[in-house]
Parts: sequence; structure tokens; C-alpha cells
Amino acid sequence: MKIETKKEVFTTPLYLESGRILEPYEIVYETYGELNEDKSNVIVVCHALTGSHHAAGYYEGDRKPGWWDLMIGSGKTIDTDKYFVICSNVIGSCFGSTGPMSEMYPSLKRYRLKFPVITIKDMVKAQRILFDRLGIYEAHAVIGGSMGGMQALTFAVEYPSFAKKAIVLAATYATQPWAIAFNKVAREAIIKDPLFQNGNYDPEEIKKRVMSGLAIGRMSGYISYLSPDSMRRKFGRNYVETDGLYELFGRFQVERYLDYNGYNFISWFDPLSYLYITKAINIFDISRNYDSLEDALDRVKNMLYLISFKNDLLFLPYEMEKIYETMKKIGKESLCEYRCIDSDYGHDAFLVEVDKFKDYVKDILER
Amino acid sequence: MKIETKKEVFTTPLYLESGRILEPYEIVYETYGELNEDKSNVIVVCHALTGSHHAAGYYEGDRKPGWWDLMIGSGKTIDTDKYFVICSNVIGSCFGSTGPMSEMYPSLKRYRLKFPVITIKDMVKAQRILFDRLGIYEAHAVIGGSMGGMQALTFAVEYPSFAKKAIVLAATYATQPWAIAFNKVAREAIIKDPLFQNGNYDPEEIKKRVMSGLAIGRMSGYISYLSPDSMRRKFGRNYVETDGLYELFGRFQVERYLDYNGYNFISWFDPLSYLYITKAINIFDISRNYDSLEDALDRVKNMLYLISFKNDLLFLPYEMEKIYETMKKIGKESLCEYRCIDSDYGHDAFLVEVDKFKDYVKDILER
Repeated sequence: MKIETKKEVFTTPLYLESGRILEPYEIVYETYGELNEDKSNVIVVCHALTGSHHAAGYYEGDRKPGWWDLMIGSGKTIDTDKYFVICSNVIGSCFGSTGPMSEMYPSLKRYRLKFPVITIKDMVKAQRILFDRLGIYEAHAVIGGSMGGMQALTFAVEYPSFAKKAIVLAATYATQPWAIAFNKVAREAIIKDPLFQNGNYDPEEIKKRVMSGLAIGRMSGYISYLSPDSMRRKFGRNYVETDGLYELFGRFQVERYLDYNGYNFISWFDPLSYLYITKAINIFDISRNYDSLEDALDRVKNMLYLISFKNDLLFLPYEMEKIYETMKKIGKESLCEYRCIDSDYGHDAFLVEVDKFKDYVKDILER
Repeated sequence: MKIETKKEVFTTPLYLESGRILEPYEIVYETYGELNEDKSNVIVVCHALTGSHHAAGYYEGDRKPGWWDLMIGSGKTIDTDKYFVICSNVIGSCFGSTGPMSEMYPSLKRYRLKFPVITIKDMVKAQRILFDRLGIYEAHAVIGGSMGGMQALTFAVEYPSFAKKAIVLAATYATQPWAIAFNKVAREAIIKDPLFQNGNYDPEEIKKRVMSGLAIGRMSGYISYLSPDSMRRKFGRNYVETDGLYELFGRFQVERYLDYNGYNFISWFDPLSYLYITKAINIFDISRNYDSLEDALDRVKNMLYLISFKNDLLFLPYEMEKIYETMKKIGKESLCEYRCIDSDYGHDAFLVEVDKFKDYVKDILER
């Protein structure tokens, strides 16, 4: 599969929900497959908190593929032989699109805490402008899980004609306090880390000197991505090491797992991006600036598919169901489907247990 | 209600599960009610991770009563007009019993990280020795929730003749990785706080200079004590403050709640005690040193009552049910009752929603 990674630079201002502007800004994106002649085969894939535009395929020398490689590729659910798939890095992130560590034109100084608050709506607006630039005015579908699902839902509400089908996985209509609480632990751990320096850290220094706050934040996230059941299955009460004498002094497998993923995170993610993106997630409310959820969802014109996961403890099935119930209430049942996938994995099921929903997604795309 | 707070000093060694000894050691405890003539009215109450011997009543000038005042008192479920209630502070804690910040006799130096690993069994053993000293060789009941429930279960298994009734709330047969993960976040946040100084902190200094790692650890705990439902009910998406212009810049109520409880925690709990007690919780496994759970539970001779809470996300109903199922399997069904309380509050239901189970407990005590 051919991966094309590109960047677009925008010199016209991006008007943000906060009232501030971002100018200029850049968006990095990746495409897979070929755009057909009538441009009717576009699938927009939206990434989650720590995801990137690299959704599928292997970069040369890499051992791990893009984050949704299980779903995207030749002959796969999102078939790159058929569809032209595009995934862009959200603004605020740290993989090439403009974010808090970008330079504040025309100076060479980085934004850091001067970066404006970004919302999911802003992320979607920026993508929409990118697609305009690329001559793409319509998509066959927009799809994403978690924060990616928030974006897909936002596409359906804010740009109701853009995508024929919006597929929202493991997301919510508005972030609930339980999810905000997990983010709070992470945000507090980052902000209070002495290396954070009120945002004025040296990005290399925090790697070398190991910014543990970012690792601790990642650990908090990891708990919310799994579930009691999946953790029990993955780790049980297994020890990875003891002093050779007595189990009381050992370390649990689950502790090693969190250590590994937490401390590894420092090498590939930026703390300020983490703060800005979790803020965007916390303040996500599809009904903001509308009178009500009904009012917001009343804008939906095309098909909206909602997929939740039974044991998702970050964005609970209840929250997706509420979107469905509201669609029914406003008489838009025919534009909405809701399915709760039987899974005890937890939130990350949308990344890991694709076998449980990929046929459904394939069916949606091909109807 | 008369509260008596006392301390006992033990100069004979306490042999710990780790093979190490604690000598000398002290235990602080509180009693409510009067011991009757034949000493048949003793109820032992066991506290949780951050609890203390102060289970009920008000100290002079205090606005808040002991941690289970809803349950214990004149005319209440655990009726101090009838029963002689005793609650002691576990070893390893920081409210007067010997713990990591105690002096290492005969020196005046504190134990700190030289304090031995403590297990739930050790905590129970120390209590048992305290009761011996007080001339109490039997209890009508032993009761506790969370880590207190682990102790009640341990009493039933290790000292099967001691209590006629063991009442275990919101606990487990062995701590599962999900709970260990929440503790991991807390432990990591404490250990990596620069004020922690590898355990050589000045206890006043960490208050004055605000040891945020301990606050972050407490926040992680708080998530696990509640549930998505109770948080939604308590906080919703309410803001506590905005800049007066735009909600994007505000702080959520749930964030303020975590800030308040997290940072307040520094003023009343010790970080090393937190590490030692969470370690004891992590390594709790009622079957350790037995061939199996069946083998361990086969020691139970008196009644064992298990109470779980439907939405407890720290120690799940499944875990309590497993104890009950195992009791049935080994033919001890007649010695065991299991009830799952319908509650969506989360783990802390055993502290907060006592109305939902107090009649059941009263009935158990009075049978």
C-alpha cells in the first residue's frame, strides 16, 4: 500500500471557537489509495488523543504500522483498493500540524501556553479547509473512534452535507465528569512536574531527564482505555520479577505494563499537546452554541452510525445511546443506527477488537 | 457517645509475613460502648486505606465525625448501647500506630523505607495481639469495607474461632490488576515527587511546599472510589468558574472536587504510609500460603457475610461472588451469605449509602 505523507500550509486565518485566530497554520496528512475520477470514494479517518495522521501501513524500517492498520488497507474493511482514505493530524497535536510547540510566526518563539484553546469543532474546521484545498468537497464517509468519533459527529452536525455517512465509535455527545477526572490526574501530573517549567521546557531535556509527570498521565489514561476484565485477562496477579525469595517484594505485570507504556510515552508525545488536546476533549459538547442536543442533532442530514462498546469505561454506551434516543425523539430515526458491541475489553476495543465490528463497518460503507 | 482513644505498647516482637519483625510497636485504638460482663458484645471494626481508629463520634471541636459514624452509635446499626465497638489503626498507617514514620527503637531515626513490608495478615495479627492484651478473646462480629473487608475476611480465615460473624463489604479475595493500576498511578506520583526525596522528606516541609504527587495519587484513588454514574450525578458538566466570558476557559466542578480532596490530603496523610498500605492492598491474596482459595476458605468455621455493590469499580461484585461460589463448592454454603447491593455510587457506597445495607447488617448482628 502506498502511503503519501504531505503537508499543507495555510496563510489565511483559522477563526477558532474561542474567538482567537491561528495564522498561519499547517496540517500534515496521509492518504492511502487513489482518488477516483468523480471524487466519490473519499473516506476521512479521524484520530484519537495520541493518534496521528499515520493511520495505516508501515514507514520504512518501522516494526509497527499506523494506528488503525487493522482496519485500513488493501482488501481490508476500509479498502484502499476502493477508497481514497485521508487522515490528518489535528491542530494542537505534535506530529506535524500546528500545535503549542510550533513557532509563533513571524517570531521563532514557540507558542507554548500562548497557543489558543482548541476545540473539536476547530479541529474539524481545519480539516474541512484542508479538504477544500485538496479539491475534496464531499466524502463517502467520515469515521473515527474516541476523540476521532467526536470529530466524526462534529462533521455530521457542523457540515451536514460533507459526508454521506458519519461513523462514530466509542465517543460521546459531551464528555462526562468521569472522563474529565482521568484527564485531570494526567493534566495535574504534567503541570506539576518540575521539568514542565510552566510550559517552558526544553523538548529534548524532558526526554533526557525523564518527565515522569507525562508518564504518570499516560498511566492514568491507560487505565481508562482498558477495563477490569481485560486487565484481569492480560495480567492477572502475575509477577514479573521478585527478589527470587518471596513474592511480597515483586513487581506486578500490570505495573510493568504501565511503567513501560508510561515512560515510553515521553519519547514520542509532547506534554503541551497533551494538555491542549485533553482540554479539547473535556470541553467537547456537541450541543455547545445550540439550544439543546436536539437542536444540534437536528442539523444532521445524512446517515449517522453509532457504535459503542459494552465495557467502555471512558465513553459509556449510555452516552452513545443518548445520541440515538435524541435522534429518534426528533424524528430522525431513519438517519441513525446504533449498535453496542459485546466486548469486555474496554474503551480501546475500537482499536484492538476490530473483528467484532469490522463487518458492520464494511456493510455500512458498501450499502 | 463516649469515645475512648487509647494506645498500647508491645515489646514482644511481631513476626511479619515477610519474615521480618516489628519490635517494639504501638497500636492506637478507639472504643465505643461498654464491654459486657461475659465479654460477648464485642464488635471489631476494621478501617480502609486512609481510615483510622476514629470510626465514630465527634472529637471536641470537630465538625466531621469518625469515618463510619453513619453506622456506629447509640441506636444505630452497630448500636453502642448494646455493643462494645473497637476500632484500631492498622500498623503501617499514620494515625498513631507504628508505621514508616515511627522511630526505629532504640534510635530516634524514623524507619522510612526501612520499614518492613506489611500485609493485611500482619495488620490482623497485630490487632489480634492487641485484643489479647485487652482480655478479648472472642468477638461477636468483625466488620469492615474495602481494606477493612480484607481484614474481616482474613480474621475469618486466619482466626476462624475469633469472630462469630465476619462481615466483608466491598472487598475481594485477591486484589486484581485494575485496582493495582490505580494504586500504581498514585505510588508513581508520590515516589517521583521531588519532595519525596527517596523517603527522606521532612513531614512539615511536604505540607508547606505542597507535595503534589500525594495529591495526584489521592485523585487517582478518588476516581476508583466513585463511578461514572455518581460523578455524573454529583458534578455533571458544571463549571465552577470561568473568566466571565466564555466557558472554554473554565474549570469543571469535578476538577475542583479532585483538587480540593487531593491537595487537602497532604495535610492529613503520610506519603510513606500510603505506599506501604497500597502495597499491602496490592499483595492481598487470601489464598497466599494455602494451596488454593478453596483450601484457604475451608478454614472458615463461623458465619461469613459478603456484601458487594453493583457499581463498585474498584473491587467488583464478581470478586465477592467468587468467594461465595467457592464456599458453596467446598460445601460451606450454610456458613456463607452473599448479597449484592443495588447501587450505582461506586466503591465508596459502603461509606456513603449505608441506608441501602444497614438493615441487612443489623439483622446479621442480631440473629
